[in-house]
This record gives sequence, structure tokens and C-alpha cells, in this order.
Amino acid sequence: MISEHELEQARLYAAERLAEAGIVLAADERDAIEVADFGLSRLEESGLQLLVYVNTDRYCAKELVLRPGQTCPEHRHPPFDGTPGKEETFRCRSGVVYLYVEGEATSNPICEPPPGTYTVHHEIELRPGMQHTIAPGTLHWFQAGPDGAVVSEFSTASRDELDEFTDERVARETIVG
Amino acid sequence: MISEHELEQARLYAAERLAEAGIVLAADERDAIEVADFGLSRLEESGLQLLVYVNTDRYCAKELVLRPGQTCPEHRHPPFDGTPGKEETFRCRSGVVYLYVEGEATSNPICEPPPGTYTVHHEIELRPGMQHTIAPGTLHWFQAGPDGAVVSEFSTASRDELDEFTDERVARETIVG
Repeated sequence: MISEHELEQARLYAAERLAEAGIVLAADERDAIEVADFGLSRLEESGLQLLVYVNTDRYCAKELVLRPGQTCPEHRHPPFDGTPGKEETFRCRSGVVYLYVEGEATSNPICEPPPGTYTVHHEIELRPGMQHTIAPGTLHWFQAGPDGAVVSEFSTASRDELDEFTDERVARETIVG
Repeated sequence: MISEHELEQARLYAAERLAEAGIVLAADERDAIEVADFGLSRLEESGLQLLVYVNTDRYCAKELVLRPGQTCPEHRHPPFDGTPGKEETFRCRSGVVYLYVEGEATSNPICEPPPGTYTVHHEIELRPGMQHTIAPGTLHWFQAGPDGAVVSEFSTASRDELDEFTDERVARETIVG
């Protein structure tokens, strides 16, 4: 659960980081910033702030904002409605984000995941101007560096409620709008 | 035709405007900025600078950069490969862009199109933080305000070579990469 106070603080943080990254929001968008704690009630450790620009049946674009060291738990986007599932590109705008995907485990990775079940450990460091595309169905998780991060996400249609998290404690429908 | 000098100047302009908008490019992206004169050889009047971040079979994301008063000529994105055609969202990042789409003609529109065939005159003003989604097959054109503009484009797969321009003098394959 996210308290009203946590929600407001998370929105404030996200709005400030977006503004610092030069990203201008319309007047009504600040209060449309969503905050997810993934049902873990440890928002600063496992959580995500996001602003959805557009999400049609065919494509989606969002900004993701992470606090310093904040982690989005391991998950994958399964097939749905006859499609292969969500395909997504992360492009770092500010700060640093460490993305972990399927593949050979990186020795001496930068990040340690928070308590929970994490099974993929191939590290991709994304600094501003760097991007990576995640194929449908690929397990992935990500954590911001010590200054937090702003990440643009471009993708096929987003259906967050379908996400499959590796850790069964993680709830799927925890976006507070 | 775009001369080498025009190409270099246009890329320089686009890179500077992107930087001013807080958009960081990777080292190899500056030289990947594409410049289109739409076969009209009047680049400052009718033209577009663009950087494609990603263009998969399913979605696409680009930055568009326009010089002051520069126009992207009227066109539409037709159906292809069993899809309804490209659906796209324009989000203004800096400057102002005036988008003209099908619908009731705006009285006293801000922009005058350059010489050529322009048939849709419903004006949508996009300032930073404002966006508009164009349905597949809809005729549209756009022109930057007096300070130029940076516009993010989120869309389904982009197949520029299929674009149908209203003015038959406009060439479809004129992107210089």
C-alpha cells in the first residue's frame, strides 16, 4: 500500500526529476504521474514512478522515473490477444539505470537486487543517450544508480496488469493513478 | 537535392536544438540525423530533420526538429501489410508547432503553407508538453513557429517510403541518411 503522503512525495520527486531533464509536462499531467510499489510496501526500495503519454491498441510511450537505487522487480510481458507480448525500448534521459536481462550473468554486477526472487543477471548500463530494446517475453529488472534516473520507454501496447513477476509476492495491479 | 553543406548545416541546427531541449544523444547519433527536403530543393521552407531512436516491425520513436517556419508537406500514411497504416502521436518538446489535420478549417490560421497543394486546414497548436494523436490515413501537415520546434513522435512502425503526399511534386524517398 502507498499512503497519500508517499504518493504525493513520489509525484513531487518525479516531477522535479522530469523538469531537471528538460521534460515539460502539461498542467494536468503532474497529477497523472502513477506510482507503483508492486505490493511490497517498500516504495523507496522497490518502486517506480511513471507518466504515460499515450497507450493505444498499437503503441505506447511513457517516462519512467526512479529514485536513487530504486528497483523495478523482475518481470516479463507475456503474449496476449494474438500478439507476441510487449516489446519495449528503454532510453536513458538522465542519471544512470542498470538493466538486467536474460543472458550470461555479469561478473561483479553494479547492483544488488533487493530481497526477493531475481533470476537474470546480464547487466546493461544505460547512461543518457543510450538505449536497449527488450524482446517480448524476456525476463528483466532494473535499478537506478545513486542519482536516480529518468528513462523514456517506447513500446507496443502496454498492459501492465498482464505482467508476470518472478517473485510471487509481487502484485500485478499496484499502480496508483 | 540537398548539398553536403546543407546536410551538415541542418544536422548542426538539429543537434543544437535537441541539446537545448535537454535531449542527450549518443556519440554516433549526431551523424545519424536524417534531413529531408521532400524533393523540393527548398530545405529551409519545406523540410524536416529527424532522429530515429527505434523502428521495429511494431513501433517507432523519433525526434523531429524544424527550423523557424519550416513545413513538413501534407501527407497521409496508407494501410500496408494488413495494418491500418501508421498511427502517430506528436508531442511538442520545445518551440511551437502548428499541426493541420482534416476537419473544420480554422478561421485565421497562424500559418500559411508554402507554395504547393494543401487541402486540410484544421489547426492544432502544440506548445511544450502538449500532444496530439493522428489516426491512420488522416491527411496532415505541420509548420514550426518563429523559434523552430522539437517534437517527439511515437507511432506504429514507420515506413516513410509509403507516405502519400497531396502535392504530386513532392518526392517520397528523399531522406538523406
